Amino acid sequence: MNRFVVTYRMRSEARAIEARAEAFALEQSVEVPRAMVDDPRVRDDIVGRVEAIEDRGGGVFHVRIALAEATTGFEAGQLMNMLFGNSSIHDDVALIDIAFTRALVEAFGGPRQGIDGLRRRTGAAGRAMTCSALKPQGLPPEALAALAARLAQGGIDLIKDDHGLADQAYSPFGARVRACAAAVHQANRAGGGRTVYVPSLSGNLDQLRDQVSIVRQEGLDAVLVAPMVIGLPAFHALARAYPDIAFMAHPALAGAQRIAPELLLGTLFRLLGADAVIFPNHGGRFGYSTETCRRIAAAARKPWDSVRAAVPVPAGGMSLERVPEMLDFYGRDTILLIGGALLAARERLTEETRALVRRVAESAS
Amino acid sequence: MNRFVVTYRMRSEARAIEARAEAFALEQSVEVPRAMVDDPRVRDDIVGRVEAIEDRGGGVFHVRIALAEATTGFEAGQLMNMLFGNSSIHDDVALIDIAFTRALVEAFGGPRQGIDGLRRRTGAAGRAMTCSALKPQGLPPEALAALAARLAQGGIDLIKDDHGLADQAYSPFGARVRACAAAVHQANRAGGGRTVYVPSLSGNLDQLRDQVSIVRQEGLDAVLVAPMVIGLPAFHALARAYPDIAFMAHPALAGAQRIAPELLLGTLFRLLGADAVIFPNHGGRFGYSTETCRRIAAAARKPWDSVRAAVPVPAGGMSLERVPEMLDFYGRDTILLIGGALLAARERLTEETRALVRRVAESAS
Repeated sequence: MNRFVVTYRMRSEARAIEARAEAFALEQSVEVPRAMVDDPRVRDDIVGRVEAIEDRGGGVFHVRIALAEATTGFEAGQLMNMLFGNSSIHDDVALIDIAFTRALVEAFGGPRQGIDGLRRRTGAAGRAMTCSALKPQGLPPEALAALAARLAQGGIDLIKDDHGLADQAYSPFGARVRACAAAVHQANRAGGGRTVYVPSLSGNLDQLRDQVSIVRQEGLDAVLVAPMVIGLPAFHALARAYPDIAFMAHPALAGAQRIAPELLLGTLFRLLGADAVIFPNHGGRFGYSTETCRRIAAAARKPWDSVRAAVPVPAGGMSLERVPEMLDFYGRDTILLIGGALLAARERLTEETRALVRRVAESAS
Repeated sequence: MNRFVVTYRMRSEARAIEARAEAFALEQSVEVPRAMVDDPRVRDDIVGRVEAIEDRGGGVFHVRIALAEATTGFEAGQLMNMLFGNSSIHDDVALIDIAFTRALVEAFGGPRQGIDGLRRRTGAAGRAMTCSALKPQGLPPEALAALAARLAQGGIDLIKDDHGLADQAYSPFGARVRACAAAVHQANRAGGGRTVYVPSLSGNLDQLRDQVSIVRQEGLDAVLVAPMVIGLPAFHALARAYPDIAFMAHPALAGAQRIAPELLLGTLFRLLGADAVIFPNHGGRFGYSTETCRRIAAAARKPWDSVRAAVPVPAGGMSLERVPEMLDFYGRDTILLIGGALLAARERLTEETRALVRRVAESAS
């Protein structure tokens, strides 16, 4: 029976770690003591197996446990349940790495569009892509559409809804998406640009599919979702149902997890179909370190069997001044997301957007 | 515009806390600096408002922020997004309390069955209810059904699937539920009991609804779900679509959240429709304190407008010996969930179950 290998970081006294690792292997598989497993097939094929215990010093251990791939039922929620269901309740344990089996990777499938798909949409070749956000929430559709028009006139590659824009009374999803899509299409026609508008989806699977229908009616083919907000089963269902749509994944609610950010945002979101992965860049409003950001970008793009690469999207309080440094750090297969700092230009929004676009274009030559 | 008030626990230097609280109020509402909010309605009605900052000593502060209820769109995922979307990414912040508005409470609706609905199903009056679990996963449907039969013959009130039982090749959902339901129905007919079998659902909303159809075909009306695994929007969609079904909520994957357990399991799961809430009891396999458990039980049952009470279900390595103490601690409106310790009785499973049932019944007289 094929197994995937999961690495947990645990705090423990050295003398207790073997028993603890064994208890963990049971908790994350059969949830009964080993002696109670009478069925030899369950014992051989299903019970979790401690593969290695590595002492990292200071009372920290890395414990590798091999779990049977069949226990996941090849379903996104149950995969998370097997990875970190009950064990998430131990507050001295973190989920830090996974070595997947080929069958799991093929079942979940990864990005359907990936870097190439986003480049095709934007026409951006040989350079990083640029992105901004429509906010604040509370504005009516026409006001958001006016912002979108000015960003598009500035030649930005992607305009995403702020992840706070949902289906609210003051700006219902349908009205907002129709207004913003029309504004961007018109700016594209007038200026010859190829700006892509990326509406934010929310709600349950029925609501998400209704929203995708509206997205398609408006001739759009990229959306934003927060996988931890809508739920990973819903996210994977969307990625599978709409392989022609590019999915940007937002990290909302993902920070609260005791799961290594590069694993959750970089690897797991990618595995389930994220074509681009937004995360808080170092030195912005959030506390991720340079090293964490490097790891997220690496996880999103690393060669991985037949899985397409996802585009890292560093964000969260970025400014135009940081563009050269970010390009240097992340390279070309990146989307630079600058929201508030661009919107702060107000009546000079189009000009500031042009400056950003030019800076990124020049860096490629 | 009506507002709900959210309490965050933050670590901060005292001189920085006011600015930090203000930044938080912006991050969790409009996500732009206050100076950039030109629209007076957005400024008055949408921007988060710091209500209070309480110094708890030792560099810990409780910050209360009032958020506009309209921003939630009255949808479960977006509610979580507003409560803790971006701010979850700050690792020195926890979400610890929420004062809801009446409109939010009415929109989400709480348990449809609650304690009374579970008592009606089991026929248990004036005493705690008893529950056990079918495991280990990996067993074929017939083996799980044989366990269910013996638990039902022992007169237990509820038998739930282990939360690891999903839709796996070695025990597909349909085959398992049909076999276990038949075994329990037969034991009930033969012995005059009223044991309720509670299958565990998993997957996306389509799969969940297909599973509910099977559950109903088998004459069952209670299910287990792990809300954080299936996603809160899917959980709320189920609770709303099937008001005649009782939902037991499992805490898998909930422990990793930086959200106070009594708030997530007790209040939020209840608000979204959990009729019973499973959580790790103190002194078991998990590290929840006595105080945390007391708070979870209190949150599940506290008087709350028209919201039905949910039943606390302490679990996780409980034994028969602890029954008197647990009854003393949790009282009668409780479900005692004893899984492994009962299953360990093997050929004496029915007798040990009878002993549990008798002990709980006697405690009521």
